[in-house]
Amino acid sequence: MKKIAIINGPNLNLLGVREPEVYGKQSFHDYFQILQSKFPKVELTYFQSNIEGEMINEIQRIGFEYDGIVLNPAAYTHTSIAIMDAIKAITTPLIEVHISNIHTREEFRHHSFISAVAVGTIVGLGLKGYDLAIQYFLSK
Amino acid sequence: MKKIAIINGPNLNLLGVREPEVYGKQSFHDYFQILQSKFPKVELTYFQSNIEGEMINEIQRIGFEYDGIVLNPAAYTHTSIAIMDAIKAITTPLIEVHISNIHTREEFRHHSFISAVAVGTIVGLGLKGYDLAIQYFLSK
Amino acid sequence: MKKIAIINGPNLNLLGVREPEVYGKQSFHDYFQILQSKFPKVELTYFQSNIEGEMINEIQRIGFEYDGIVLNPAAYTHTSIAIMDAIKAITTPLIEVHISNIHTREEFRHHSFISAVAVGTIVGLGLKGYDLAIQYFLSK
Amino acid sequence: MKKIAIINGPNLNLLGVREPEVYGKQSFHDYFQILQSKFPKVELTYFQSNIEGEMINEIQRIGFEYDGIVLNPAAYTHTSIAIMDAIKAITTPLIEVHISNIHTREEFRHHSFISAVAVGTIVGLGLKGYDLAIQYFLSK
Amino acid sequence: MKKIAIINGPNLNLLGVREPEVYGKQSFHDYFQILQSKFPKVELTYFQSNIEGEMINEIQRIGFEYDGIVLNPAAYTHTSIAIMDAIKAITTPLIEVHISNIHTREEFRHHSFISAVAVGTIVGLGLKGYDLAIQYFLSK
Amino acid sequence: MKKIAIINGPNLNLLGVREPEVYGKQSFHDYFQILQSKFPKVELTYFQSNIEGEMINEIQRIGFEYDGIVLNPAAYTHTSIAIMDAIKAITTPLIEVHISNIHTREEFRHHSFISAVAVGTIVGLGLKGYDLAIQYFLSK
Amino acid sequence: MKKIAIINGPNLNLLGVREPEVYGKQSFHDYFQILQSKFPKVELTYFQSNIEGEMINEIQRIGFEYDGIVLNPAAYTHTSIAIMDAIKAITTPLIEVHISNIHTREEFRHHSFISAVAVGTIVGLGLKGYDLAIQYFLSK
Amino acid sequence: MKKIAIINGPNLNLLGVREPEVYGKQSFHDYFQILQSKFPKVELTYFQSNIEGEMINEIQRIGFEYDGIVLNPAAYTHTSIAIMDAIKAITTPLIEVHISNIHTREEFRHHSFISAVAVGTIVGLGLKGYDLAIQYFLSK
Amino acid sequence: MKKIAIINGPNLNLLGVREPEVYGKQSFHDYFQILQSKFPKVELTYFQSNIEGEMINEIQRIGFEYDGIVLNPAAYTHTSIAIMDAIKAITTPLIEVHISNIHTREEFRHHSFISAVAVGTIVGLGLKGYDLAIQYFLSK
Amino acid sequence: MKKIAIINGPNLNLLGVREPEVYGKQSFHDYFQILQSKFPKVELTYFQSNIEGEMINEIQRIGFEYDGIVLNPAAYTHTSIAIMDAIKAITTPLIEVHISNIHTREEFRHHSFISAVAVGTIVGLGLKGYDLAIQYFLSK
Amino acid sequence: MKKIAIINGPNLNLLGVREPEVYGKQSFHDYFQILQSKFPKVELTYFQSNIEGEMINEIQRIGFEYDGIVLNPAAYTHTSIAIMDAIKAITTPLIEVHISNIHTREEFRHHSFISAVAVGTIVGLGLKGYDLAIQYFLSK
Amino acid sequence: MKKIAIINGPNLNLLGVREPEVYGKQSFHDYFQILQSKFPKVELTYFQSNIEGEMINEIQRIGFEYDGIVLNPAAYTHTSIAIMDAIKAITTPLIEVHISNIHTREEFRHHSFISAVAVGTIVGLGLKGYDLAIQYFLSK
Repeated sequence: MKKIAIINGPNLNLLGVREPEVYGKQSFHDYFQILQSKFPKVELTYFQSNIEGEMINEIQRIGFEYDGIVLNPAAYTHTSIAIMDAIKAITTPLIEVHISNIHTREEFRHHSFISAVAVGTIVGLGLKGYDLAIQYFLSK
Repeated sequence: MKKIAIINGPNLNLLGVREPEVYGKQSFHDYFQILQSKFPKVELTYFQSNIEGEMINEIQRIGFEYDGIVLNPAAYTHTSIAIMDAIKAITTPLIEVHISNIHTREEFRHHSFISAVAVGTIVGLGLKGYDLAIQYFLSK
Repeated sequence: MKKIAIINGPNLNLLGVREPEVYGKQSFHDYFQILQSKFPKVELTYFQSNIEGEMINEIQRIGFEYDGIVLNPAAYTHTSIAIMDAIKAITTPLIEVHISNIHTREEFRHHSFISAVAVGTIVGLGLKGYDLAIQYFLSK
Repeated sequence: MKKIAIINGPNLNLLGVREPEVYGKQSFHDYFQILQSKFPKVELTYFQSNIEGEMINEIQRIGFEYDGIVLNPAAYTHTSIAIMDAIKAITTPLIEVHISNIHTREEFRHHSFISAVAVGTIVGLGLKGYDLAIQYFLSK
Repeated sequence: MKKIAIINGPNLNLLGVREPEVYGKQSFHDYFQILQSKFPKVELTYFQSNIEGEMINEIQRIGFEYDGIVLNPAAYTHTSIAIMDAIKAITTPLIEVHISNIHTREEFRHHSFISAVAVGTIVGLGLKGYDLAIQYFLSK
Repeated sequence: MKKIAIINGPNLNLLGVREPEVYGKQSFHDYFQILQSKFPKVELTYFQSNIEGEMINEIQRIGFEYDGIVLNPAAYTHTSIAIMDAIKAITTPLIEVHISNIHTREEFRHHSFISAVAVGTIVGLGLKGYDLAIQYFLSK
Repeated sequence: MKKIAIINGPNLNLLGVREPEVYGKQSFHDYFQILQSKFPKVELTYFQSNIEGEMINEIQRIGFEYDGIVLNPAAYTHTSIAIMDAIKAITTPLIEVHISNIHTREEFRHHSFISAVAVGTIVGLGLKGYDLAIQYFLSK
Repeated sequence: MKKIAIINGPNLNLLGVREPEVYGKQSFHDYFQILQSKFPKVELTYFQSNIEGEMINEIQRIGFEYDGIVLNPAAYTHTSIAIMDAIKAITTPLIEVHISNIHTREEFRHHSFISAVAVGTIVGLGLKGYDLAIQYFLSK
Repeated sequence: MKKIAIINGPNLNLLGVREPEVYGKQSFHDYFQILQSKFPKVELTYFQSNIEGEMINEIQRIGFEYDGIVLNPAAYTHTSIAIMDAIKAITTPLIEVHISNIHTREEFRHHSFISAVAVGTIVGLGLKGYDLAIQYFLSK
Repeated sequence: MKKIAIINGPNLNLLGVREPEVYGKQSFHDYFQILQSKFPKVELTYFQSNIEGEMINEIQRIGFEYDGIVLNPAAYTHTSIAIMDAIKAITTPLIEVHISNIHTREEFRHHSFISAVAVGTIVGLGLKGYDLAIQYFLSK
Repeated sequence: MKKIAIINGPNLNLLGVREPEVYGKQSFHDYFQILQSKFPKVELTYFQSNIEGEMINEIQRIGFEYDGIVLNPAAYTHTSIAIMDAIKAITTPLIEVHISNIHTREEFRHHSFISAVAVGTIVGLGLKGYDLAIQYFLSK
Repeated sequence: MKKIAIINGPNLNLLGVREPEVYGKQSFHDYFQILQSKFPKVELTYFQSNIEGEMINEIQRIGFEYDGIVLNPAAYTHTSIAIMDAIKAITTPLIEVHISNIHTREEFRHHSFISAVAVGTIVGLGLKGYDLAIQYFLSK
């Protein structure tokens, strides 16, 4: 049974509350249950933190035994070399997902420190992006 | 029956020949047949050109009647405001796909004129990216 | 009888369809007939292409015998050194016209490779800009 | 009867004297009389100042009752956010005119704070640019 | 009795007229009377000019005897090293006030030549900013 | 009774110890008691953390029920898009305060990610800035 | 018998006509005959196009069987990542030639996307540059 | 008898008062009398204004009949393209003088719009710089 | 007995696991014991955290009583103004150490916010750098 | 008999020793003898120095009487305005040669102060570049 | 008797030969004799070198006993931090002189590493600049 | 017996004289004797030059037989690609040492061309830095 982790970064605990015109009205908790139903044969886990270093702790904890990580680093995408280094240090492959299209937003959201150490990136496809990332890991 | 078009940009006709360590050894023609088999209920079409303006012609031709376009603009990603304008002019939603992870390559490949006018972007997931983009359109 | 050519660049064949809030609802074909009526003593010709190199071919073809060229290079304004070189190579004077005010749009639309090799530029005055450019050539 | 104002910025009082190889040998005073003769049905007024703030005073004075302003901000084009703000504050539409082709001159003359708040811009067509700008206002 | 001067820069004479969605509908003249009522024990004076150099003249005139200056340099905030130098030359402390939040507006409005020579800055708190600045001087 | 929260960022727990020539010799704890005395009818709360994510947790916790937040993000002002996003997500209005004049310090302290999502900013007025920010909220 | 191809980019069909003070008065057609005479034992071919994509088509067509390509990309030197990619994809070695000294011309002509994927570059030695490039291939 | 004009820009009327550690304690009025004594055979005139446009008026007024202008543009050195244009328009040669060494001050004081249109520049030699500039004109 | 603290930043808990070709195969725990053996007369302490704010807490805790701090801020070197401020606030001298040569790695690793507030920096000398830093403190 | 000088810059005395994977294994001394054999009718001289100023001395010494200079400025290519000035001062035409393809190396090696004052440049063609440069001079 | 040294940098030994339209036709040797005649009571010495380090040697040799140095660093003006450091190390005051107006030449000639450590700078006044610099030293 | 060379760059011969507040009052000659006493089993040599090329000569001379080089390139740190190339060409490992903390000085002293080709760098630890560098070589 494959083990795949979803890790969400800062303010994504507010999903459904924060800027719904950008991120939609569904909480991630509800969506995670939909994902579990859709992929019953995958051991899916979920972690969220607003603290950069706790995200690193989690990436280190699972990063040597899971089969895939789906990471939405949110604002830390653009500022965290520390998360980038954590990803380089682990052996589990990782896909970076962004719910909204960051390329239509502020200039400083166009650069990601994460993309260069991820397998790949899915941007702008809403919560569906998490689903597609899991499918990618299952196809490997 | 949904109609989805795949449009590939310059040098992708060499797929399987050009820099196989970056792009893999499979020709796109072969892969397209796999896609057709996987999605028998979708009317899938394929177009490739090395000429920027011919890509614009094709985008204009199908862009008011198809249900989705999967575009890999290749090198024109980084230089073509004209293709960007064509996408803004049409009504069919479009997903930008890149086979390799452009964020690990030269600096000038990190910026895309296309991303801001696409629904979203899938980068670095190999030929699988085309498959996931089609799934996205089918889920809408 | 003076010979004046109008050359339009990429996506201007969609005028009236593409982003009408920016470019208006009239097709250029309709407007061209209005221009012909207004200037019966001028031999007016019209050419449009989405292909950069075909625009160069046309500029070279007419650029040694016409009395004036009214060029709207559209997206190639900002990227085409090749069209710039074609204009430097010919002897017919050329005016650059933009229908919308490019200075209120994205930053990358503020720079033109064409302006420095044109006689002058008319920006933001709608289709009227073509009319004024023709009047300029007639006043010489 | 339409009211259209022409406002000229610093050093344009020297027209015909200053750098005649760039700006020509005709004084603006002489040219203004030609314009008045050509447009007898327009109430044309003319104002020139070397002082940025006096130009703002004038723009404010006429900017709520005239039908059009033709502004050549000269050197203040490139440095005056204050004139830009005055134009945003008024209700009269304004066209920016430059006699010479500023795009063939120093790099710092390529940016205009005025263009983004003007209806449009006419560059490089000599004194004829004022004439064409008036025609634009008459055509509305 | 403390003497505090308010100096407003270009286009602020149009307050209540100019871009009311940004600056509100109240004229500064009306607001100044409210301030005088609120601070009856302060000798409050008011000066406004559209001319950069006249603002400098005024700053020099009062800058060696007043107890505080509340300056809203408007557009000259971003361009005037000359006003900056005037403030460095005087001995009266000065607070820079902006009615609107300049950090949500164009990029070129984010830099101030004044801030580094002011005691401090109050931005985005509407006309209330003048009131708070006066309170600051009174608390010293 | 209005509820207003003060949130201080990293190293402000050292106020009175750290660089007293820049920040003064009074601890914030002492000053907070002065504020409570001055505003007896306001429910004032105080929170400080050196951890960016804990500041986000606190902003989220109070950001949907308080009447105002006075935030001094200290060093995170210049680096934290995550705090910026938290402020965008909440509904309580927020004023950014800096004790020292950041515009007279290093270049990298001149840019704030917070200013664009705050109602406004008060800079350089010492601890008095907190007092003025509270007054602003009370005046609304 | 060695096969060497010469490919010229946009506007080089005007050689002898276009800016003769920069490029000289000889047409490339005439010069090609001189080269054929000088190198009778080399199978020399010549291709010119104003269309970027047609140049790519030609590079792909010959790039797996010729012994050398002498490419003058003209204006596309500075803008075409697509031609750069075509050269990376082929196996035939390529030398970039420029007739004039591009380093004495406009700033934007100083950067070449082609140089990094060419064996080497010959700049500023007039038509003689083509001759020297052929000699290089013959010496290998 | 040679006619030489000295023109001083903004805040130089405060010389002796403003930042004496940078500019010294002598007023320019006093120094001007010393200069008149030293050069009895020169018709020396002096003009100072804080208003950019008045400086332009003065430059235009004397710029076609004097034998030399010694200009200290002060803060306008770094921002005034309009003064630059006035100098280009006149025929009298002009030397730019700065009392303090602007290269040891803020970065934005290192660029001068005036230097490129002056005969030459004397920087950092105190009031002596005016004296040396006059000597230069006398030596011609 | 001198007290010297070693503080390591994010991902250095993985030393010996993470990118061994860059950082070597020895865990820091093992190396710390070697250091304790080598310097028996020094009270050596060790702290590591992935959380920026916890590093600040530790720096504040020991920064007023220890004789020296050896800090390897890892990824926070390049992004943390907050750690920089903590170092400025304390009185214990601090040396910045990097195991690998950061100047041979990505561009964004070439700038350090820490260097300017440290006594000095030792880069690229492997774990030996910690040893040399301790020696420096002992020599004072 | 034509006189042609070869001047090599810093570290080229190590040719064959230094980075042989970049520069090859042949010493320049050996290659120079090959060149002398190939061009018996040319008076070929050779000079190498690691000292920028000695290269200038040599360029000045021969630069008014030789028929051509082949200069490989090595590292001084990118930093020496002084050598650039020496070349501008002399009358002998000069070709700049680089053995390796500098465009595939570090960014700072892409700019040359020499190219703009040379007749032309030959890059990346190995030692053969010297041979081709001599041929160019002989063809004139 | 005052001792003043003149030090000239690279290529100034060619004065009168090199680019006479920029630097004039007089050799510096001739001009030095004129200076000696004009200032009989000054011990004037002259040194020129094309070698940066020899200029440093000379500056160090005289820099603790002379009364003034007049330095024309020529091309090293723009590149030599080493000469800048030598000037900072000595105690003799130094004036930087440039014969031509470097502000009308290439962009890279607009920045000087020397100006910030010189007393002042005289630019564009021809050989007269040396004369004026000596006068400045005599007036102290 | 190990052979270690110390090479000092420009102006370090003035150590103890030049800017003693930055570099201290001890001459390097004195300090070198202390080092020889401390490391009696090391063959220590010392070389200093103000001439960039002589430093290269020395690096080449010893760089294939010594066990270590301690280089303080002083001002050439920031400008010399030629010294960088010399270090790349040799086989002896090299450590870059700076006496003062270059990161607290001018911006242009923050970049080093040497660091990327050195084993490592020691900055800001005074003359002690040379001692620590020697220890590093002895520990290998």
